[in-house]
Amino acid sequence: MRNLKMKISYDGFKYKGWQKQKDTDLTIQGKIEAVLSKMTEEAVQLVGCGRTDSGVHAENYIANFHTKCALSTDTMLDYLYEYLPEDIGIKSIEEVAERFHARYNVKSKTYVYKINNNKFRDVFNRKYTYHLADKLNLMKMRYASQVLIGTHDFQSFTNLRNSDKSTIRTINYINIDEKDGLLVIEVNGNGFLWNMVRIIVGTLIEAGKGNLKPTDVEKILNEKKRWEAGPLAQAKGLFLRDVEY
Amino acid sequence: MRNLKMKISYDGFKYKGWQKQKDTDLTIQGKIEAVLSKMTEEAVQLVGCGRTDSGVHAENYIANFHTKCALSTDTMLDYLYEYLPEDIGIKSIEEVAERFHARYNVKSKTYVYKINNNKFRDVFNRKYTYHLADKLNLMKMRYASQVLIGTHDFQSFTNLRNSDKSTIRTINYINIDEKDGLLVIEVNGNGFLWNMVRIIVGTLIEAGKGNLKPTDVEKILNEKKRWEAGPLAQAKGLFLRDVEY
Repeated sequence: MRNLKMKISYDGFKYKGWQKQKDTDLTIQGKIEAVLSKMTEEAVQLVGCGRTDSGVHAENYIANFHTKCALSTDTMLDYLYEYLPEDIGIKSIEEVAERFHARYNVKSKTYVYKINNNKFRDVFNRKYTYHLADKLNLMKMRYASQVLIGTHDFQSFTNLRNSDKSTIRTINYINIDEKDGLLVIEVNGNGFLWNMVRIIVGTLIEAGKGNLKPTDVEKILNEKKRWEAGPLAQAKGLFLRDVEY
Repeated sequence: MRNLKMKISYDGFKYKGWQKQKDTDLTIQGKIEAVLSKMTEEAVQLVGCGRTDSGVHAENYIANFHTKCALSTDTMLDYLYEYLPEDIGIKSIEEVAERFHARYNVKSKTYVYKINNNKFRDVFNRKYTYHLADKLNLMKMRYASQVLIGTHDFQSFTNLRNSDKSTIRTINYINIDEKDGLLVIEVNGNGFLWNMVRIIVGTLIEAGKGNLKPTDVEKILNEKKRWEAGPLAQAKGLFLRDVEY
């Protein structure tokens, strides 16, 4: 069996997220598996690097699959390009070791969240940025973000409930930059809970509005209560940028 | 009467072009006039800087209109932002002299055409670039473009037929740049005939493929026959960038 690793970009705007679901055809995994299965004449099962929420985008999502299909990776790329919808693109396919697993082997992931902080919307980026006209204070956001760096229990930063699984994660860095009113928040960590990046962003937005101080963010972490943290930021501003192995 | 000048950006993807038409509601002019008329309680008529084809975008389209409405331009901006569709944005409104006319007073216009010249489509730019996998030779395109600079009869570069109007126009410059496989062709001229920029781009693409030499482009100009020039490049890659007065 060959083990093939794919780098995928997708505009998640109209999709219900990465993971295949029974009640909808609109998932990234479902779309790609369907084309791969037709191509290989096998029931291909993709292993993704993780779930992405409904409406979230990806620049470099990683997945792998096993196949007996003998086609060259170039031929596969051409086939996928031909049959996948326009909003899903395969950037590369490469042969990897049998033991490679797109989810288990993840060392860290990088997400970016884009906020159009100008007064008016940008007609060309309206599907790829969250528009917020109230000016955010970048320095306040940066100070607040520093509290989250390191290993913490992020229970306040997920909408996951009643789970026995650990909610401890490590955030390696958060960079916040601004150019021409476009704010880009980059978050890198060893793993993320359900909705975690969007709740972090929602919390940093509150900090940027002056509603939360770094000590408040510390308190939110310690309280371990979802309702203490900021609101869930809109999906359309979020991109999975890179996965590190 | 006040004379107000607007700077407009629009994603033209789903529209039938700038100009109002009887048989469709999907024009930029139609959409904006409807909101302006509601706002001013007058039958507002917009004077646009020119037509743009179905599917063509604009970063800074200029239009003006006369009104007795006493609202401040800031209030007007907020109103338009509230009621216009997401893919049409008003960037500014300013008071101008009574004699200002958005079409008659145009000195020159700048268009850009974007070509994704990478092997695969870009999922995030698919509606704003023309995707062409065959590698284009930038130098050949630049050489060919130089033939078009200056004042010429551009009859071969329009789909307009049987017109008594002059087809003589002046191209001031054509810049062609490339970054990460994205080709950007910038064309500035004193005026453009129907489809002229897209036929120029279609012709430069032929040059970039090695199918036309600068002497061929000279011949195309001289022949004054539409079928001698290159094909019409797709609308979605074209943006009206600026209008100079």
